[in-house]
Amino acid sequence: MQQALALAEKGRGWTSPNPMVGAVVVKNGQVVGRGYHQRAGGPHAEVHAIDDAGEQARGATIYVTLEPCNHFGRTPPCTRKIVDAGIRRVVVAMTDPNPGVEGGGNRYLRNQGVDVITGVCEKEARTLNEAFTTWITTGRPFVILKCAATLDGRIATRTGDSRWVTGPASRRYVHRIRHAVDGILVGVETVKKDDPSLTTRMEDETGSDPTRIILDTHLSMPATAKMLHQPSEAPTWVICSPDAADSRRSALETVGAKVIVAAVKNGRIDLAALMEQIGRMEISSLLIEGGGRVIGSALAARIVDKLCLFYAPKLLGGDDGIPMCRGTGPERMQDSIAVHDLKVFRFDEDVMLQGYLKPC
Amino acid sequence: MQQALALAEKGRGWTSPNPMVGAVVVKNGQVVGRGYHQRAGGPHAEVHAIDDAGEQARGATIYVTLEPCNHFGRTPPCTRKIVDAGIRRVVVAMTDPNPGVEGGGNRYLRNQGVDVITGVCEKEARTLNEAFTTWITTGRPFVILKCAATLDGRIATRTGDSRWVTGPASRRYVHRIRHAVDGILVGVETVKKDDPSLTTRMEDETGSDPTRIILDTHLSMPATAKMLHQPSEAPTWVICSPDAADSRRSALETVGAKVIVAAVKNGRIDLAALMEQIGRMEISSLLIEGGGRVIGSALAARIVDKLCLFYAPKLLGGDDGIPMCRGTGPERMQDSIAVHDLKVFRFDEDVMLQGYLKPC
Repeated sequence: MQQALALAEKGRGWTSPNPMVGAVVVKNGQVVGRGYHQRAGGPHAEVHAIDDAGEQARGATIYVTLEPCNHFGRTPPCTRKIVDAGIRRVVVAMTDPNPGVEGGGNRYLRNQGVDVITGVCEKEARTLNEAFTTWITTGRPFVILKCAATLDGRIATRTGDSRWVTGPASRRYVHRIRHAVDGILVGVETVKKDDPSLTTRMEDETGSDPTRIILDTHLSMPATAKMLHQPSEAPTWVICSPDAADSRRSALETVGAKVIVAAVKNGRIDLAALMEQIGRMEISSLLIEGGGRVIGSALAARIVDKLCLFYAPKLLGGDDGIPMCRGTGPERMQDSIAVHDLKVFRFDEDVMLQGYLKPC
Repeated sequence: MQQALALAEKGRGWTSPNPMVGAVVVKNGQVVGRGYHQRAGGPHAEVHAIDDAGEQARGATIYVTLEPCNHFGRTPPCTRKIVDAGIRRVVVAMTDPNPGVEGGGNRYLRNQGVDVITGVCEKEARTLNEAFTTWITTGRPFVILKCAATLDGRIATRTGDSRWVTGPASRRYVHRIRHAVDGILVGVETVKKDDPSLTTRMEDETGSDPTRIILDTHLSMPATAKMLHQPSEAPTWVICSPDAADSRRSALETVGAKVIVAAVKNGRIDLAALMEQIGRMEISSLLIEGGGRVIGSALAARIVDKLCLFYAPKLLGGDDGIPMCRGTGPERMQDSIAVHDLKVFRFDEDVMLQGYLKPC
């Protein structure tokens, strides 16, 4: 199953809105077939692994990180493939989280006389597909909040200088996250200040660019923004209020942006409603990269699932640097936002603290 | 040497202004004597270890974490004790950092025909006595800055509520630091707001209270402050400007405080000058516990040697909580204060980042 999980991981960034899945066929203690879901619309992991095993699949065991599908989707059901190949035993890490189909694949297989064992390395499998599971069960994307700060919690100096807070290893990891997610969200202030490309730039392999999603209530984004004039497979979506000016809208659409009208709450984009809206548009995972006002709003709207907080080995000092969060905080320390399952990662001299805003 | 270092550690909090030292006597591959410097004025580690070995010391090897002393201080020189006991070989972790005597003990021993090897586990020994080394070489205390913050760098809410930021395990460790240091420094605002005792409270053993040092330019500290009316071996020093009112001074002295006049710079206590002043008063190590203004001033005055930053698994959110540092920060990120040798420690769910403000 560890091999199957590692195979599944190879699909990261390419399978959405499908989950990552890996499969290994074992016969007489030997691995005879390997496969993983490589990209949405392509064959499932089980198909690759069984085809890889060929005739050896007969009487073999298949280890698969997710319950085999039992319905005709973009591909025929894997349960049929397993039965037809003569697989005798299926070992599953986690059941399909899709509320409509959960357990159906396992039941079908058992009814066909196949041994099914489930729950092997389930925790690892759930972590692997935490984004997919959130999206398929709630309809809204799994939201990762990324922030790079000094040890005293400042993302920029009082003049706005933030180049660079963290080191190259941290920044490389951020590009891995960008590759893994469907969307990346920033506020229009970040666009105006930094004019970022928000693309995925990985040194050792090709990455997939996330859909760029810009919060821009009044459509003040310049049509000259770099992200609208760069080679990228991914679109740029500009999210505005229903009151945004049509002239601005056409200016942005002319240079290729997709302008999306969203609900407004207290004069700002309603982030909770927006998550449902973009979830319906198959954004199953979203990276929020800031700035401070967007971070503060996202936390206040309770849309964040996971934190990736990078800390550089430096202190800015003073109280006039740009803080990680903007907005009004609580009166009592006990009303702060609890972070669960806090883990520490090192990226050279930087420290990354990862945690979840809901109990795991 | 690892055993000798562990023995030395047992003296932490009790040996100041002397260093911690451990010693182990080994004969024919067997440990035959152990000792450590238990408290200032008492016998040195070598004396304890050689006495513990008794006649077995003749022809033996002694492992000692610091070069044996060669001068008559509060006790006779250990070099004489070693020669008289017939020790054949001395293995030393680090030479005596005291500029006047460094290397003298080793030279004397070699002249007496004793084999001397130095530099074994030197890094560990230097870390063990980083405070002593700083004080003996510069005359100012080794300064540790401790801060407990949320992940977004807030030490309290906008209303000042800070109970509690971090958990019990972190707070227990802070009491170990208090035990280890000679002095603890806070601003008078912290005294007025929290009325802290600033004593050492350890669950499993007796601790030594540090000298309480309060920055109080205008002597506005209430004579009713808890720290002035509690059982504690340690004194409370109140640091004021030369212009502080005599009436305030006598009010505080009446309840047992020692009022110390210090140099002032830009209307506030000159922290760099104060460090030299209290260094002369045998404060060889100092813990700064805040608040934000004292932390900001200490960083700006560049008096801090070591950081112990505790982060609780929570986000306060907003930009109105009390920040870790007060004051004016730099314009450029590249002018931030570099932190060296950043290390991560866990205290249950909390994370502690430890680092140094000078390259190691």
